[in-house]
Amino acid sequence: MDTKKKIAILRNWMKSEGFDAMIIPSTDPHCGEYVPEHWEIRKWISGFTGSAGTAVITLDTAALWTDSRYFIQAAQQLEGSGISLMKDRLPETPSISEWLSDNLVNGCKIAICGEMFSHQEFQALQFELHGRLEIISCTDPFNDLWQDRPSLPKDHIYVQPIEFAGITAKDKINQIRGIMAKEQINTLLISALDEIAWTTNLRGNDVHCNPVFISYLLIGENACTLYIMPEKVSPEIQDYLTSQGIQTKEYNTIFADLKKLESVWIDSATTNQAIYDSLQINPFVKRSPVAFLKSVKNEQEIEGFHQAMLRDGVAMVKFLKWLHPAVVGGKETELSISNKLEEFRAQQANYLDISFDTISAYGEHGAIVHYEPTEETDIPVKPEGFLLLDSGAQYADGTTDITRTIALGDLTPAMKLDYTLVLKGFIQLGLAKFPTGTCGTQLDVLARQFMWSHGKNYLHGTGHGVGSHLCVHEGPHQIRMNHVPAELKAGMTVTDEPGLYLEGRYGIRTENTLLVVPFLETEFGSYLQFEHLTLCPIDKEPILVEMLSAEEKDWLNTYHLTVYEKLSPFLAPEEKEWLAEATKSI
Amino acid sequence: MDTKKKIAILRNWMKSEGFDAMIIPSTDPHCGEYVPEHWEIRKWISGFTGSAGTAVITLDTAALWTDSRYFIQAAQQLEGSGISLMKDRLPETPSISEWLSDNLVNGCKIAICGEMFSHQEFQALQFELHGRLEIISCTDPFNDLWQDRPSLPKDHIYVQPIEFAGITAKDKINQIRGIMAKEQINTLLISALDEIAWTTNLRGNDVHCNPVFISYLLIGENACTLYIMPEKVSPEIQDYLTSQGIQTKEYNTIFADLKKLESVWIDSATTNQAIYDSLQINPFVKRSPVAFLKSVKNEQEIEGFHQAMLRDGVAMVKFLKWLHPAVVGGKETELSISNKLEEFRAQQANYLDISFDTISAYGEHGAIVHYEPTEETDIPVKPEGFLLLDSGAQYADGTTDITRTIALGDLTPAMKLDYTLVLKGFIQLGLAKFPTGTCGTQLDVLARQFMWSHGKNYLHGTGHGVGSHLCVHEGPHQIRMNHVPAELKAGMTVTDEPGLYLEGRYGIRTENTLLVVPFLETEFGSYLQFEHLTLCPIDKEPILVEMLSAEEKDWLNTYHLTVYEKLSPFLAPEEKEWLAEATKSI
Repeated sequence: MDTKKKIAILRNWMKSEGFDAMIIPSTDPHCGEYVPEHWEIRKWISGFTGSAGTAVITLDTAALWTDSRYFIQAAQQLEGSGISLMKDRLPETPSISEWLSDNLVNGCKIAICGEMFSHQEFQALQFELHGRLEIISCTDPFNDLWQDRPSLPKDHIYVQPIEFAGITAKDKINQIRGIMAKEQINTLLISALDEIAWTTNLRGNDVHCNPVFISYLLIGENACTLYIMPEKVSPEIQDYLTSQGIQTKEYNTIFADLKKLESVWIDSATTNQAIYDSLQINPFVKRSPVAFLKSVKNEQEIEGFHQAMLRDGVAMVKFLKWLHPAVVGGKETELSISNKLEEFRAQQANYLDISFDTISAYGEHGAIVHYEPTEETDIPVKPEGFLLLDSGAQYADGTTDITRTIALGDLTPAMKLDYTLVLKGFIQLGLAKFPTGTCGTQLDVLARQFMWSHGKNYLHGTGHGVGSHLCVHEGPHQIRMNHVPAELKAGMTVTDEPGLYLEGRYGIRTENTLLVVPFLETEFGSYLQFEHLTLCPIDKEPILVEMLSAEEKDWLNTYHLTVYEKLSPFLAPEEKEWLAEATKSI
Repeated sequence: MDTKKKIAILRNWMKSEGFDAMIIPSTDPHCGEYVPEHWEIRKWISGFTGSAGTAVITLDTAALWTDSRYFIQAAQQLEGSGISLMKDRLPETPSISEWLSDNLVNGCKIAICGEMFSHQEFQALQFELHGRLEIISCTDPFNDLWQDRPSLPKDHIYVQPIEFAGITAKDKINQIRGIMAKEQINTLLISALDEIAWTTNLRGNDVHCNPVFISYLLIGENACTLYIMPEKVSPEIQDYLTSQGIQTKEYNTIFADLKKLESVWIDSATTNQAIYDSLQINPFVKRSPVAFLKSVKNEQEIEGFHQAMLRDGVAMVKFLKWLHPAVVGGKETELSISNKLEEFRAQQANYLDISFDTISAYGEHGAIVHYEPTEETDIPVKPEGFLLLDSGAQYADGTTDITRTIALGDLTPAMKLDYTLVLKGFIQLGLAKFPTGTCGTQLDVLARQFMWSHGKNYLHGTGHGVGSHLCVHEGPHQIRMNHVPAELKAGMTVTDEPGLYLEGRYGIRTENTLLVVPFLETEFGSYLQFEHLTLCPIDKEPILVEMLSAEEKDWLNTYHLTVYEKLSPFLAPEEKEWLAEATKSI
């Protein structure tokens, strides 16, 4: 069925229900970043296959908002569909609210699937429309409209072993109950899939790259209920759940059960509007306590990260040793390189999956932040310029996230300058010492200061938390220009990933995953610092050594020494030799 | 009359009105930092003369909250008064709300003078008391209770000449009306005295160190009314006001006029609760637009700053040349030194006043942030250790704020280390380049990074705006650890003043006033940087030169060269000689 036909079907439904427009985002009932096929409604209705985008359909017009990495792809895929492309974040592009206000007369009704909007987003949209247009949260109509809609994922769930999880689900639930008691709240709803996976010490295969499973978790003072499709729970898992004091109920019965509650704590950023609508009471709205608990890794989780990073580093070294001769061989492309890297990782113990779609971006593709090569965009990789590789894996004992920018041949002085500006920022952020209570925003400038002195900048964040065999992006802390109030605490993981992107030319990013660790206790209080978890050489070829301070050179040489000492026992002689050269002092 | 008697009088009044407690802060109806004598009610009732403190009187007990710089003085002054000292910001000290909740039963009534609380503070207090205690905003009863209450200041106001102000009051008012129109608001109330002084290009003598005058300003679409005591307005000023389209009315008639309004914009941080109570409508509450307009200096104001800084630098050099031999002479104290500095400044053209009480803190007094010597605390200054001097002046063409920490003799290695850590932070913040849109919080770490690496910190802000012949502290921008969302814009002044305070030992602070200026325009956007306005040598004696980077040494030498070149034409030969030595390259 072509897009025009699908839109016609949707419009018929809209007319029959009295709606003048519908907004179709690319999320799911758990406000996820990646979405199971069942909820890829925006992709189905618009024909646009990119990971981010929102379609808005009125009775006589339609538009789709997506960001710069998808401008070309979206333009091609939307051709002839009657949907206009709205280039997000360009000054001339109206926001969805502005566009709706321009295209509809006051009093019109706009439908959204309540499950596909967080309560927070729903409120923001209502605020932006000033009551001039009415937003109506309706039940998902696509079960009827979308004929071959994929079913909900029915894969089995499995236990995250206690030697990696560190704390039993039972103990975690009691810890959460302690926080609930302090807030004088007797029921907590957890909607975010990674929070449910962390709390229950369970994992699943429902979402691409993210080992989570579709469910809700309701923690009461005595009972703890996992709402999940029964097909997903084997008898062994049922026994495990019982042992942890968790009962199960059918996924969709959550709505009926919520109606009975007299008080409930919800996180408005991760709880969808349909859930909110089903409450008969005013909920207590606050960031979920699990977001904070999950972000501070326990001893076993930290040990797991160390072990996973060793294996990931070995895979990276084997890959890097392979890379240059292969590129000189002349047959490699962005995709073939990405596949090869996955191959090296898959040979490692405890490997389960990649942790996000590999960004293998050659030459000017490197300037497209979050570029992923596809069959259509794939290009040959030649022995010249930069290859930007941002990749990671899910190991049973830890999740990895690393970016290296590799010089494949001749570089211009501008490329070397930019590479060195990024590297200096990367090193200085990693060297930061800071008092307890410091937020990421306060440290962000350390990564940007050198490029700012050259009038350059990057517009993405500098750092995000990384899960323990969980999502590669996790909060609540971040390191970024705009203010995020969550403090950095000992035990948190956080990436350090400054970059520079020169449109039509090249992209550079260097990224390690760090761990927040204690530094000093003094009369002024307690201080924290970072430890680099990632173990992998950083390409020295593009460095303008004279631009590094003595401290920065020392750091790089010491880091490289550590990389060699930790990884070499696991390498073959010729790999060791390659690594010795790659980590030689500058 | 002693304190006990005054409290008894107040309690009689409280009983007759049915109040169970009264909160008496140290502010005034314009939410000022410094307060005319007329409103020094807290000082009158408690006998405590410090600049900051809040008294709370119930029918049978009383307490006074003040911060660490006043602990000793307050303890002495409160002795025998029946008022307990509450040491603010110590973990064991209850907040005023907590203390009230502990000392009063639910339903009790607490009086405040509506004029002495901002609407924002009133709301916060109400929120903290959860409706368990009732806060009642009442009319100031002290006109009757305080027999010799000083009258309102009746000093004449005077014009800030256009060659220093740069823009006429008429034009400023029209600019403000433009902003009001955008917000679709036809009346704006300005309560903050420095905002009124800036808007009208008038100055006064009502508040210690701050050239402002008691008044309200109401800007309508057509009329602009200054509410002020008629005694303060000479015929010449009346003519000036008429020429600028400003009419005057008696100060207290503002309340009656506000009742008639159909819409009004108020700033809840600077508008008092009595004003708020007098409104018959829900006001539009938002930060005053004048705070932003005032913070961005125009060309003439910037030129005024440059001229004022030249004269201030000359006074500082004459003073610094005098200082060391005088201290060796053995007769100097903190107060005598402070007076001598004022003497040198007073010899300069356009000098009007000091811009805040000079902090002349010797030895361990330096560790008391915001210490001011008094007859009681004054100590002799010897040729050893550090003297911390934070001072500034009001010149007709600009306001200055500078801190120097001066080595008077032998220093320990720890003192030199701390001095150098502060200096490195001071230099690095001053060297920052940053994109348009950056807030002070994002840059703050540049001043703290080196001391953080030694587990040290200071708990005050790193920078504040400085008025143009106005208040030495002005917003809305700041540079500090906690988030302040106001962006740094070209034309803003901001101080750069890191410090270190070792209790019972010494204090160090180095401060210049900076100007935000354009840096670069690139494909990444527009970038800003700082220019140092302050011209005065920085003591080189305590510097551990080997700890400075080449960039930092360069900066210091270049700055000192500039100081010498700009100031030496105004100095006598022996002063020049002294300055040449003080600014010689390291």
